[in-house]
Amino acid sequence: MRIPVLVDILEANNLIAQEIRERLEKEGILSLNLMASPGAGKTSLIERTVEALGEEIRIGVIEGDLATSLDAERIAKYGVPVVQLNTGTICHLEARMIKSAFESLPQIDLLFIENVGNLICPTGFDLGEDAKVVIVSLPEGDDKPFKYPSIFRESKAVVINKIDLQPYLKAQVGTLREAALSINLALDVFEISCETREGLSGWYDWVRAQFAAKGEGKTVG
Amino acid sequence: MRIPVLVDILEANNLIAQEIRERLEKEGILSLNLMASPGAGKTSLIERTVEALGEEIRIGVIEGDLATSLDAERIAKYGVPVVQLNTGTICHLEARMIKSAFESLPQIDLLFIENVGNLICPTGFDLGEDAKVVIVSLPEGDDKPFKYPSIFRESKAVVINKIDLQPYLKAQVGTLREAALSINLALDVFEISCETREGLSGWYDWVRAQFAAKGEGKTVG
Repeated sequence: MRIPVLVDILEANNLIAQEIRERLEKEGILSLNLMASPGAGKTSLIERTVEALGEEIRIGVIEGDLATSLDAERIAKYGVPVVQLNTGTICHLEARMIKSAFESLPQIDLLFIENVGNLICPTGFDLGEDAKVVIVSLPEGDDKPFKYPSIFRESKAVVINKIDLQPYLKAQVGTLREAALSINLALDVFEISCETREGLSGWYDWVRAQFAAKGEGKTVG
Repeated sequence: MRIPVLVDILEANNLIAQEIRERLEKEGILSLNLMASPGAGKTSLIERTVEALGEEIRIGVIEGDLATSLDAERIAKYGVPVVQLNTGTICHLEARMIKSAFESLPQIDLLFIENVGNLICPTGFDLGEDAKVVIVSLPEGDDKPFKYPSIFRESKAVVINKIDLQPYLKAQVGTLREAALSINLALDVFEISCETREGLSGWYDWVRAQFAAKGEGKTVG
């Protein structure tokens, strides 16, 4: 009884996601859907990226949280447009929420969607984004890709955060990287610390390259 | 359209949870439902508790994961009975799963249910347990109770794990404790490290006290 209803929800979601995708395409906006466990560093990664690329690329942010506007307040300090979505008890973002939030944003080049902190449920919901990015922090352990395989399968890139804590942890960055690649060999992997800023330049280059590819797609199309 | 279906699922779940509750009651088994983000330390807390209390209390474990039997294998090394539930894409445990897993366990005094790593979805599903316990690790940040309030409201105790990493983090144990209590003043709070074993004796005493209270309840009832 549950599955048919879930399919209905997903079909309705996909229709709206397709609308969003067409609009982003038309306006040449790159959209990245950031997914992670609570506290893995989604907001911190957006903060660092805005600091580094905010002058060259117009960035907008949609923040998803069950409650509070704490994350949106953090982002707003950097002077970029941000919309906070409070989902109440809903454990993931859906395309209808993004469509509504997107209306409130000015003209931008790059849209970061910070999903609800959850390594499972956001995976199934297309938000019309160009790519899903999963962030996993080293203190969570190096076995997470095996235990939550879907999100690693669906993502284009994995960002391993908090590598500055490596000296104090049993979990190993290399083991985590290998685990992620064993689930999805096509993943681009970044080993970073939003705290010390180690490894972030590779991530910035990747975002720039995604944006450039999007622009070319637009010209070609 | 979604809400009525969800209510049906929850009602069906509650009926089975009630069956489980009555059976646990009759057999004098204390049951604790451990909930947390991925990698917060649910399995480690069970490992430490089995080491400390396994001689005085007969412990059984039900492990919930999307995939793999990694956690059950860790527990099995301690010689306690354990059942692994793989939920596939389901983001939480449900009473029907527990009922089925419980059949495979021998006579025990204390049942640990390790829920799927998810700070949101497990909250709504009664598993017939005596108490819900939320584990949150310090690297996740000290604002989590504000951003995921339901799980802190529904829990009887919060275990703050990985406090050995305090010197290397901006997040503060005291701030996290206050945040949790501001959501639910009745919470019993434990500040621990499963790695260094700091603070665990208070947790062991709490588990002993819950078990003793259960026994008294049984005699009185």
